Amino acid sequence: MLKWKGVYKLHKDVSITVIRRIPKYYRHLTELFTAGTNRISSKELSKLTGFTASQIRQDLNNFGGFGQQGYGYNVEELKKELGKILGLDNNYNVVLTGAGNLGNALSNYKGFEESGFNIIGVFDLNYEKPRPSKKDKSDKRPVEELEEFIKENNVKIGIITTSKRHAQEIADIYVKAGIKGIWNFADVDLKLPDDVKLEDVRLSESLYTLSYFIQEYKDDNTSGE
Amino acid sequence: MLKWKGVYKLHKDVSITVIRRIPKYYRHLTELFTAGTNRISSKELSKLTGFTASQIRQDLNNFGGFGQQGYGYNVEELKKELGKILGLDNNYNVVLTGAGNLGNALSNYKGFEESGFNIIGVFDLNYEKPRPSKKDKSDKRPVEELEEFIKENNVKIGIITTSKRHAQEIADIYVKAGIKGIWNFADVDLKLPDDVKLEDVRLSESLYTLSYFIQEYKDDNTSGE
Repeated sequence: MLKWKGVYKLHKDVSITVIRRIPKYYRHLTELFTAGTNRISSKELSKLTGFTASQIRQDLNNFGGFGQQGYGYNVEELKKELGKILGLDNNYNVVLTGAGNLGNALSNYKGFEESGFNIIGVFDLNYEKPRPSKKDKSDKRPVEELEEFIKENNVKIGIITTSKRHAQEIADIYVKAGIKGIWNFADVDLKLPDDVKLEDVRLSESLYTLSYFIQEYKDDNTSGE
Repeated sequence: MLKWKGVYKLHKDVSITVIRRIPKYYRHLTELFTAGTNRISSKELSKLTGFTASQIRQDLNNFGGFGQQGYGYNVEELKKELGKILGLDNNYNVVLTGAGNLGNALSNYKGFEESGFNIIGVFDLNYEKPRPSKKDKSDKRPVEELEEFIKENNVKIGIITTSKRHAQEIADIYVKAGIKGIWNFADVDLKLPDDVKLEDVRLSESLYTLSYFIQEYKDDNTSGE
């Protein structure tokens, strides 16, 4: 879903299709590591990810290959190496704009901080005085302070959980203030300069896909319609 | 992300790859329709979606082709037809389990109801007596009532926004009660029978992808690492 232009510098010989599979490997390795698993074969990884064992070996060879014949992969090591490839060994300062339910869900999610994404500012268009009774991790701030906050705190990632109507306006502020990656949950296509990376989460498209696939249960006779 | 097995009955000659592009077309057509646009060429649709004009024509031809040479596509008609293909002309009863911030965000989102997805029950594992001060659309219910509620209300779709730890347990209840599609936000791989469709929303994978692509800004010299 990320609109990506030009040749990527870090692993320029590796196709985008391979790159897009790395987060999935990483997620499974994290699960395995947490569960105390020490090593895993490409065959077992295949069962978990749905990719073929030979594809997995090929994918990981792109980055130097971490497996040993007859042993498989060391879970901790592979997790660590893939984490580095994904840049998860870094810490990023992150801001979020749009403090509705979704914004609160994201800003309270602990998993992000564990992966090095620190949401250090939560901004809202409808800023009200803080209500101390609310269990939000961060105090909310008025959107008027957004640009300055980003510049002062070396923020590199901005999350957008506003309504459609305001998403581009927020994206423009993000870009102007120097943000390099936008994680967008609003259901619009943002217009961004080429050097700002965009990852869209399209909840409606995901739900529509589910809708398509469950149809066979009600429309058994409409084959070929 | 949907795990899909076997030959699909409705459009069995159409590849999954094509099917997966339909929700994107539909989303853009909805935007255009809302903005009052009457017709659109495949070239203009190409600009919006990022697919080539010829790919778009080919995709839509799979379903009978809705365009007219020299005119393009009638936005309202095409939106309606693609909506039918996606099953959005139907109404689905939906339940959601896991009434945290994310669950509340989804259950309060108006777009779902407009598309025919009616969240008629919100269940929680930590059920407390309703707090009337909360602005939730639905009253929360204890998870003990989940199975019966699904059966009684002909619920076909179940959303999971619980923690990882409880997701499989809820999925098992969904399956037992007769749900046919699961929209899963928990970061686990659910085990489901083949006739229950699964669509996963992997927020962590999406964020990791963004992390990968913004690295070039800090690691300009590590090409080939």
